[in-house]
Amino acid sequence: MLAEIITIGDEILIGQILDSNSKFIATELNKIGVSIYQITSIQDDKNHILEAIENAQSKVDIVILTGGLGPTKDDITKLTLAEYFNDKLVLNIEIVEQIRTMFAKINYPFTEVNKNQGLVPSKCTPLFNTVGTAPGMWFESNHKVVISLPGVPFEMKTLMSLSVLPKIQQTFKLPFIVHKTILTYGMGESMVAERIEDWENNLPKFIKLAYLPSFGNVRLRLSAKGNCKEVLDNAVKNEVGKLTTIISDIIVGFDEDETIEVSIGKLLQEKKQTIAIAESCTGGSICKRITGIPGASKYFIGGIIAYNASVKINELGVDKRLIDEFSVVSCQVAEAMAQGIQQKYQTTYAIATTGNAGPTTDITDTTVGTVFIAIATPSAVYSEEYFFGKPREKVIERATNKAFEMIRKEILKN
Amino acid sequence: MLAEIITIGDEILIGQILDSNSKFIATELNKIGVSIYQITSIQDDKNHILEAIENAQSKVDIVILTGGLGPTKDDITKLTLAEYFNDKLVLNIEIVEQIRTMFAKINYPFTEVNKNQGLVPSKCTPLFNTVGTAPGMWFESNHKVVISLPGVPFEMKTLMSLSVLPKIQQTFKLPFIVHKTILTYGMGESMVAERIEDWENNLPKFIKLAYLPSFGNVRLRLSAKGNCKEVLDNAVKNEVGKLTTIISDIIVGFDEDETIEVSIGKLLQEKKQTIAIAESCTGGSICKRITGIPGASKYFIGGIIAYNASVKINELGVDKRLIDEFSVVSCQVAEAMAQGIQQKYQTTYAIATTGNAGPTTDITDTTVGTVFIAIATPSAVYSEEYFFGKPREKVIERATNKAFEMIRKEILKN
Repeated sequence: MLAEIITIGDEILIGQILDSNSKFIATELNKIGVSIYQITSIQDDKNHILEAIENAQSKVDIVILTGGLGPTKDDITKLTLAEYFNDKLVLNIEIVEQIRTMFAKINYPFTEVNKNQGLVPSKCTPLFNTVGTAPGMWFESNHKVVISLPGVPFEMKTLMSLSVLPKIQQTFKLPFIVHKTILTYGMGESMVAERIEDWENNLPKFIKLAYLPSFGNVRLRLSAKGNCKEVLDNAVKNEVGKLTTIISDIIVGFDEDETIEVSIGKLLQEKKQTIAIAESCTGGSICKRITGIPGASKYFIGGIIAYNASVKINELGVDKRLIDEFSVVSCQVAEAMAQGIQQKYQTTYAIATTGNAGPTTDITDTTVGTVFIAIATPSAVYSEEYFFGKPREKVIERATNKAFEMIRKEILKN
Repeated sequence: MLAEIITIGDEILIGQILDSNSKFIATELNKIGVSIYQITSIQDDKNHILEAIENAQSKVDIVILTGGLGPTKDDITKLTLAEYFNDKLVLNIEIVEQIRTMFAKINYPFTEVNKNQGLVPSKCTPLFNTVGTAPGMWFESNHKVVISLPGVPFEMKTLMSLSVLPKIQQTFKLPFIVHKTILTYGMGESMVAERIEDWENNLPKFIKLAYLPSFGNVRLRLSAKGNCKEVLDNAVKNEVGKLTTIISDIIVGFDEDETIEVSIGKLLQEKKQTIAIAESCTGGSICKRITGIPGASKYFIGGIIAYNASVKINELGVDKRLIDEFSVVSCQVAEAMAQGIQQKYQTTYAIATTGNAGPTTDITDTTVGTVFIAIATPSAVYSEEYFFGKPREKVIERATNKAFEMIRKEILKN
């Protein structure tokens, strides 16, 4: 089963925005077993749209268009689709009433412009938009479909999840696909591949494995395809079980959206433990990631961004002689920072970072990219030295990920 | 002058990565007066590539391909281009020698696989890659060009800047285009447009204005097109001067990459002043942005992420009675936090935030999205209440931007 995604509008073509809509649609279609043949970004122009749809329909079964459906934007996509299907726009009372009801609920005035959103080609099945005013449209002919969605990401995503994906699965009687994502941390793609080679080679034919690497972590995605969901569920569960015994030391989570900070938060809550963070070179990046998780206040007590040496000395209790002897970028100072904030904030654990993120060597003359990360636990403190290269943003991101990896291991031990 | 960008490879089509290469190429081409007719992402497949190039060449003057040039990837793009132009691959000694020299400099072994990178179609002009091994290729026939670039972003960008853009300007004798970006903060697009309406209406015909809005800020981009660079430079300078007198209160910077935190850093360095930050609901986001700028240690002393009330009381000296009377999410507490860190870290200024980023109302029962931002200056402290809606990430991002806007105004006054 093949699909093409067509995005309509100028923003992508002038380089103003990234095409994140296509990324979402491509990911979701792949999950239900539809491959993307092509992604095409075109101008808001009738002839260009007509040509793109015709081109796409000659190659694929499913064409998904996004954008060009706003009430004031002359409805170019709607009119063009009507022309393409030799159709005309008619007022769909159901859509109008749905928008009117939605507006009434939030005391929002309903105008003539909103009513225009109810005008859709007579041959389409409207896809009701519960989070915006532009409806989606579903055209079906000769066993092929053309779907038009609004370009606003939140509305597009809602329509995809609630209407488009189930309708595609139903219409094309697609096989079941079961996915499971395993997040691993602290090992490169090729090393992970080596460790699980035997297991991978013995996977049943209907289960495929994909490696999705990013900074400091690799996601492993298992996809099982078949006609009986129960069989797939059991087979995937079985394989995940085997995999877990092989690489339990690097597995961080099993949810698609699970990040290592979510996993750390869950562990701390389960164990009723707390954490504090003292950051120098990472400058708030670790605290920001930890507090990005809803409910972080249950285990995160607070942090100190000890940029200036005076803060390290006065607030974290780092002995000035340590700094004079070993410099601020040293394992001695990192460990003293971690212990300092752990004692001050009375937490189970603490993380501390000190290093040089660049772009130039600072007064300490430490090589750009060198970072010391210290972890304080209830019974000990230790630190590790890393070299994260450049540029600045990468040093900060890599140090943040590494700190999470280190602290997670400690929490699992205690 | 029209162009089409074609990206080759699976990563975009399976939704694994965002197409940031096309965004960069589109932005840069637009700047030199080349409009993008279409962006097309296709599979790593010979027939698909041939068809896409043919299709594009029937519509546009310039086709830029990226991806599919790795030494181990069967060189599909290179072979396909040779076929498209009825050509064959020949070994280009210059390319081989350039790679050999580059490897020798870093003591890296040169292998047969690397030598293959020197194989290019005989009809192309190779574009030497100084930061990688896959050369770019430039094909010219019938006053139209096809350019092939490696997919690695850093290599693609270097080749674009050093070779492709100058060569396009030369080949097509494009007019000069002079750009100037003005960053404004704290006012929506329509309000900015209203304030500068008269000025905009009186712009010379050869100068165009674009509004590029994003969270909390609007970039205004002036683009002047003509045959004499000096005339354009002077005209743009003149118009920027006029604009500055109209909206000096909201202009933050004049560089394309300038952010508000860069502008704040420059001001603090100029004035030899310092800053400290106490964050509750923003959780490290303000510190992270401030320390993301190289050299921030010159003016940023440190920060406290006061997530738990105990940290607000013990570390920032917030009176517990204030919390009991007004709750932690209040202007009284925000102001006490700002004053507390300003005194403790002995800085010229301080910023403090407290609020509820959501997703649920917390023990304080404050509405999700409510944030108090306080600013301490050498002579006073004040705070403002904002409502930033949801979701959590947006509340944090908006509060961070608003805090920067507030502090910048204060620094300008002192």
